[in-house]
Amino acid sequence: MRMIKWQNGTVFTPDQTKLPLREVTLEIKTVDQMCEAIKVLRVRGAPLLGAAAAFGVALAAYHSKAGCRGELLAELEEAADRIKSQRPTAVNLFWGADRVLNKARGVSGDMQQVKDAVVVEAQKIADEDAEQNHAIGKLGAELIKDGDTILTHCNAGELATVEYGTALAPIRVAWEQGKKIKVIADETRPLLQGARLTTYELMRDGIPVTLITDNMTAYVMSKGLVDLVIVGADRIVQDAVFNKIGTYGVAVLAKEHNVPFYVAAPKSTFDLTRKAAGVIVEERTPEEVTHIGGVQIAPSGVKVFNPAFDPTPLKYVSGIICEKQIYYPKDYATLKP
Amino acid sequence: MRMIKWQNGTVFTPDQTKLPLREVTLEIKTVDQMCEAIKVLRVRGAPLLGAAAAFGVALAAYHSKAGCRGELLAELEEAADRIKSQRPTAVNLFWGADRVLNKARGVSGDMQQVKDAVVVEAQKIADEDAEQNHAIGKLGAELIKDGDTILTHCNAGELATVEYGTALAPIRVAWEQGKKIKVIADETRPLLQGARLTTYELMRDGIPVTLITDNMTAYVMSKGLVDLVIVGADRIVQDAVFNKIGTYGVAVLAKEHNVPFYVAAPKSTFDLTRKAAGVIVEERTPEEVTHIGGVQIAPSGVKVFNPAFDPTPLKYVSGIICEKQIYYPKDYATLKP
Repeated sequence: MRMIKWQNGTVFTPDQTKLPLREVTLEIKTVDQMCEAIKVLRVRGAPLLGAAAAFGVALAAYHSKAGCRGELLAELEEAADRIKSQRPTAVNLFWGADRVLNKARGVSGDMQQVKDAVVVEAQKIADEDAEQNHAIGKLGAELIKDGDTILTHCNAGELATVEYGTALAPIRVAWEQGKKIKVIADETRPLLQGARLTTYELMRDGIPVTLITDNMTAYVMSKGLVDLVIVGADRIVQDAVFNKIGTYGVAVLAKEHNVPFYVAAPKSTFDLTRKAAGVIVEERTPEEVTHIGGVQIAPSGVKVFNPAFDPTPLKYVSGIICEKQIYYPKDYATLKP
Repeated sequence: MRMIKWQNGTVFTPDQTKLPLREVTLEIKTVDQMCEAIKVLRVRGAPLLGAAAAFGVALAAYHSKAGCRGELLAELEEAADRIKSQRPTAVNLFWGADRVLNKARGVSGDMQQVKDAVVVEAQKIADEDAEQNHAIGKLGAELIKDGDTILTHCNAGELATVEYGTALAPIRVAWEQGKKIKVIADETRPLLQGARLTTYELMRDGIPVTLITDNMTAYVMSKGLVDLVIVGADRIVQDAVFNKIGTYGVAVLAKEHNVPFYVAAPKSTFDLTRKAAGVIVEERTPEEVTHIGGVQIAPSGVKVFNPAFDPTPLKYVSGIICEKQIYYPKDYATLKP
């Protein structure tokens, strides 16, 4: 199922803050609306953010009243900058916005041709993402044996992508292959993407899933209940995988219990010009921690630290499942920008 | 401040499910009320449960209309059994109820003397706990250096004890000694004792505290922000420390980051007749995970695993701070039932 669609200058995508209790489709017509949706995680998930950023620039192009080509390009640049500033860690946001922007810059025709090219390129990004995820699923399913239980963190499922998911793609393929598998989803505080989204997706597909809180992971691993871990990624740099806060802890626990720890992500997630130390980790508002669904759970005025991501050093990663191949530790040194 | 008080056949204690937003004092007059309070964690924390169990049996004694000594003892036994069945993992519940029961059995006088002895013994348990915690604080404070940041899990503070706390006792003493320390409290899902209770207590005392979600622990440790961990315990067996779910994960992460991991608990928490494999881990209702403060956060009907405790093998424990001494790994083998 397509998670993001373009139709005549409107972007349609589920409001993920409302799931699983309500299925609301956003109709996004302006760059402002797209920025807000990205900021508050109505639209989220690294690959989906790439497409959303591209469609955001496409909205600027489609609705532009610019009088000349230069003015149009300036508008697109401004839109791309604004979109990219919403979340500093997810590389796909930068990648998606810049790819359509570069496309626009390269078109030599009239204004309408530039506008059309931007929309077409955004759609192409979406289509490619869907294709890549199916490829990731097929490759990754080879790592899953009949009877395995897979633990996943956050939501790197269909809802995080244009279609099919990244971390959940191998699980979907394994299930379709008839393997009797189970999934353990940790809830992923503070925004509960595991509790809200991963369980919702898997239950919809009939794949057995058990929900735990984040701090139960060590215990379920110690009881031998986890055969492998698969998570997504927001940015893969030379020495680490940035993903939703808590990923690094799961990786350390997996290593301690000899559980393989895999990352599933398209090549667009790689940012090999950089090391972990050079990446800004987004810090979000204290209210995400002190309130849940509008209910206050901590004393007023308490000091909070709320980083949205953490880096997992590659030494904890058993493999990175990409669309063309699985990279194993022996391959990491060969990865080049 | 005393967390549990006895006055003329009524037990007064804060309703911990209402904190930090509301300060409500329970007035418990019957064994049924005490059982309910223990079951839903209005009264919680291993040492406080010991005193609560004892006062619960004292309520049965004080209000008894038994016609003879044998009938009275049967009533007390029934009350003790009912209280102990509320939470299967916390050893203090058993210890507190059985201690007053044994006292009652040993009194040779008339019914009133038995009743009085039970009440006096329950009060003695409470007084001893308060004393022990101050002793734990004094010993444990030696482990804390000026400028240290201490991470703690769940609430092993004053609210978990009759007075002063166990894990928070060394922190209180260090603070009173003028050491410039900071505390990081993880929220401790599902019941949020860290977010609700530890922050509340420490803020009240003016001790700097920062709240994080459970899955941020690995990241804050990797950034060098944690100098030591101190947690409480619900039961210490030959080979492991049982404490609130999530403790084991913190211990593994501490080891991986070379952060000392201490347990603070009175000797009454020891159950050295047993190994970890022989302890039943309480599993609680799915609703504790799927709902927070009445708000549903996961799909209806999702399968949930909700263990309340986990065992941390002693190899992860740098020391156990008791009222008379700190036990170090070299001492563990000498601990005998």
